[in-house]
Amino acid sequence: MKIDKLVGERFKEKPSDCVIDSHALMLRGGYMKNVANGIFSQYMPLKRITKKIEDIIRQEMDAIDGQEVLFPVTLPATLWDESGRYESVGSELLRFTDRNNARMVLGMTHEEAAVQLVRDYANSYTKYPFMIYQIQTKFRDEGRPRGGLIRVREFTMKDAYSFHTSQEDLESYYQECYDAYNRIFARAGIPEVITVKSDSGMMGGSVSHEYMLLTPVGEDSIAVCADCDYRANMEAAQSIIENVADDKLEDLTKVYTPNIHTIEDICEFLNSPLEKSCKAVVYQKNMTDEFVVVFIRGDLDVNETKLTNLLGEAVHPGVITEDCGLHAGFIGPCGLSENITVLLDKSLEGATNLSCGANEEEYHYTGLNISRDVGEVEYHDLAKIVDGGICPQCGKPSIKISRGIEVGNIFQLGTKYTESMGMTYLDNEGVEKHPIMGCYGIGVGRLAASVCEAHHDDYGPIWPISIAPWQVHLCCLRADDENAKALADKLYADMQKDGIEVVYDDRNVRPGVMFSDADLLGCPVRVVVSPRNLNEGCCEVMTRTKSINEKVAIDDVIPQVKKIINDMFTDLNK
Amino acid sequence: MKIDKLVGERFKEKPSDCVIDSHALMLRGGYMKNVANGIFSQYMPLKRITKKIEDIIRQEMDAIDGQEVLFPVTLPATLWDESGRYESVGSELLRFTDRNNARMVLGMTHEEAAVQLVRDYANSYTKYPFMIYQIQTKFRDEGRPRGGLIRVREFTMKDAYSFHTSQEDLESYYQECYDAYNRIFARAGIPEVITVKSDSGMMGGSVSHEYMLLTPVGEDSIAVCADCDYRANMEAAQSIIENVADDKLEDLTKVYTPNIHTIEDICEFLNSPLEKSCKAVVYQKNMTDEFVVVFIRGDLDVNETKLTNLLGEAVHPGVITEDCGLHAGFIGPCGLSENITVLLDKSLEGATNLSCGANEEEYHYTGLNISRDVGEVEYHDLAKIVDGGICPQCGKPSIKISRGIEVGNIFQLGTKYTESMGMTYLDNEGVEKHPIMGCYGIGVGRLAASVCEAHHDDYGPIWPISIAPWQVHLCCLRADDENAKALADKLYADMQKDGIEVVYDDRNVRPGVMFSDADLLGCPVRVVVSPRNLNEGCCEVMTRTKSINEKVAIDDVIPQVKKIINDMFTDLNK
Repeated sequence: MKIDKLVGERFKEKPSDCVIDSHALMLRGGYMKNVANGIFSQYMPLKRITKKIEDIIRQEMDAIDGQEVLFPVTLPATLWDESGRYESVGSELLRFTDRNNARMVLGMTHEEAAVQLVRDYANSYTKYPFMIYQIQTKFRDEGRPRGGLIRVREFTMKDAYSFHTSQEDLESYYQECYDAYNRIFARAGIPEVITVKSDSGMMGGSVSHEYMLLTPVGEDSIAVCADCDYRANMEAAQSIIENVADDKLEDLTKVYTPNIHTIEDICEFLNSPLEKSCKAVVYQKNMTDEFVVVFIRGDLDVNETKLTNLLGEAVHPGVITEDCGLHAGFIGPCGLSENITVLLDKSLEGATNLSCGANEEEYHYTGLNISRDVGEVEYHDLAKIVDGGICPQCGKPSIKISRGIEVGNIFQLGTKYTESMGMTYLDNEGVEKHPIMGCYGIGVGRLAASVCEAHHDDYGPIWPISIAPWQVHLCCLRADDENAKALADKLYADMQKDGIEVVYDDRNVRPGVMFSDADLLGCPVRVVVSPRNLNEGCCEVMTRTKSINEKVAIDDVIPQVKKIINDMFTDLNK
Repeated sequence: MKIDKLVGERFKEKPSDCVIDSHALMLRGGYMKNVANGIFSQYMPLKRITKKIEDIIRQEMDAIDGQEVLFPVTLPATLWDESGRYESVGSELLRFTDRNNARMVLGMTHEEAAVQLVRDYANSYTKYPFMIYQIQTKFRDEGRPRGGLIRVREFTMKDAYSFHTSQEDLESYYQECYDAYNRIFARAGIPEVITVKSDSGMMGGSVSHEYMLLTPVGEDSIAVCADCDYRANMEAAQSIIENVADDKLEDLTKVYTPNIHTIEDICEFLNSPLEKSCKAVVYQKNMTDEFVVVFIRGDLDVNETKLTNLLGEAVHPGVITEDCGLHAGFIGPCGLSENITVLLDKSLEGATNLSCGANEEEYHYTGLNISRDVGEVEYHDLAKIVDGGICPQCGKPSIKISRGIEVGNIFQLGTKYTESMGMTYLDNEGVEKHPIMGCYGIGVGRLAASVCEAHHDDYGPIWPISIAPWQVHLCCLRADDENAKALADKLYADMQKDGIEVVYDDRNVRPGVMFSDADLLGCPVRVVVSPRNLNEGCCEVMTRTKSINEKVAIDDVIPQVKKIINDMFTDLNK
């Protein structure tokens, strides 16, 4: 490819709406262009990157016996009726009607389509196990698309679905896929990706993992233990609180607390620490507006994902009205209306002498001891894990909260879809059973952006050899010099003949322009031809990182470039 | 791939709703599954076929300096507002709104997206010419999807867009693309595809060609001259009628024609041939319901595409009401209400002594001579060309009407989109101009189905080596025989090691089942291992067409298979 005809704009200024580097660099380098909110077109350099990522994914999926298939982007709503997700998924599922007024959706994930494709075929245990996957466009009507390719509305995703006749078989395949994912990320140039236990969310199922690239600009929060290998998405991380009972139990005492509404104010008023208070957090169920009050230790926050999972339905922050039976700012676990769902977080278990609301305007209690004053209650894990918290695995107070980008995920789905969609097979004794599913996703564009996020400098991306748009960027300084131009033309032709992917800049532009464009395209190897080097009978060969930067005799340039490329691949496949 | 784990159903019965062979065979062979009306999922064999077709297309597009890009499937309606197509395209354009009520469309073609991608970049003549293309999912809300992959609603298409600073440059690139298309179809195994001149339809522009696979099951009608190389889609073919004037001009005479409404009835009543009548065909404009009456020689039909192009807007068959000023069955060109748009087809030019309606209930005229009775009128080419009609190129009455499937098309678009969307560049004198566009499409799935339509027998498709799901189908008859199984296993392993694509059937099934499955998968080369052959120290090697069917010594099997594969590729690339 000659750069003077490479379609796409490259520019210096960081676009004002970019909050993360990969977004800014991919706009500045002519990788993509915004078409609508969270919807991009890809120019050739990005298309080449995503295609290479797709090829890596395809190879690794094929290597674990995946069969590549293709599901439609547009799906009939009836399929999503079967699974129940037409109703249960929120407005991120784009619903529309076709010319005949048939209800349809844009696929945001394809569990339903996968079951539909195989449920007639896989009617006997002899057909199992198998895995099908596709690499296809998806649409998810995000409320807040952001970060360039990190969170978009339309995206290309590899999604895979495996079908099994036993949990053991699923688990063994899940492990194969787990390993394949690690190979994919390593080959794409970000071996530093870690796995974390995650919440299955709307996918259903039990065990699931996310693959996270740790970076301060990530939008996920991850609990990582500094003392063992525990890692979990904050949404899924178990919160462990060890309360030490006071020696003496106080009496439950009503206190007049005028004009005091927040947990901080009451603790200050009572001169007592936050962790000696019992905070009420009020929600309402989305479907019915029924109130749910969560009591939690005053220094902690509610993890709404855990709450949703426990309730089995979505909630929103409660809106307290005068006649709802709740007294905002004064809600406590003693004597609360029986019509209200009350949940207690485990952080209150064993806590003594707490302050709490008295369910009466302008009054609080002190000396709350739950088992004595409320009764024998059940505690649930509903709190967000905190920095410095106790590791659920090793028990040490070594939890650190990091930020990360989710670049992939794997789920043990169980029979959620096969049951709801009536998919069965006959086992070897002729008994009808529901197959057990796993599903496995990787966002292609997000992976590209994540690699850029992990590997760039102020001047542009530093693409790993495996996914770089081109392997070599060939610059001819002073293309008006006949000899320099002739040598560069020859190197361009010879490299192509040798199967080296090369982008060639023979424009009559200043070296500064040429090199800043090369930095933006981020090809891992650069070869510079110039009249000055030519006088010495050599070219400059360097890497984008400058870890190699050497003068190489003209005849040795191509062998040396090949060697560098091979070494780079070897490093990635280690 | 081992066939016992190949996902997909294969069955014998032709599905009742299949009217063409490729549709039936691709369902029966486990290539695809219906998801909704005109929407399919692809199983692995079809996905492998379409991927190979995409790779061929990609290579040929890259070879003519195409830059692969990617446009979104979902597009903001505002882009289509700019070109005017949001309004002008009918209900095949799927319109919807997102969660924020923003109007969007599903891309059915991407001229607007292409202009949007490059209009900021290509602001100087130095950036031209260039071509960008994508291979991406599209959606077209067809009223009557049919024929399996021939006419679907969701499909994968390669669409390319070239940009030029002169008509000459467009034409020269158009020719390059024309040739590339011929190479694509030849490499995909259907070199018999012909090009025909076509109507540009809603794409705009002037010169355009369609690539047609002639087959009786095609849904397009093509006029082919038996005496010269003229070929045109019936929608675009000029109709030439040479009328010979009668020696004596009759008088215009009103005739009482009770209860006679059709053109056939009146000609029979008057004992006069159809071509001596002037038929009225009534339309209404879609936007305004305004009436349009086309007069045409009684033996001919109106070509509605020509009519739409002439009017510049869409029409539908007219609904004649009592007060509309038209007398159904009695409409003629003399004395028709002046509020009605009247168009006369060229077939009436020079015709004499015609019969026609008298614009009065139960009356017709005879002896109509248009220039005398109606006045000096303009004639337009609005008739459908007919079998045996006059060739517009060589003038001989040698037109034959054939049926064909459109597998690709190329358009000289001109400045329709760059003007409407405000795309300009500065030429070498600093003058602002609109670039000139070409666009070039190939439907990937339709091409796969067309190859199947062209190459199959009663038992299944006969895939060309270039796009076959696998190159070799390896059958082990009597897999319970230890020696046969061992040899087949070894051949399977060795072929894979040698880079031969092989599907392996080692099921314990009857030879009939095995061979009918192999026929349905249509791999070009078949190798059969059996205890009987093994006793003779050989295997059977045959082609799907049975043009080769030989016993080959075991050690020679792989070399022979490789030779057959190479010969097949050589044949396609001739």
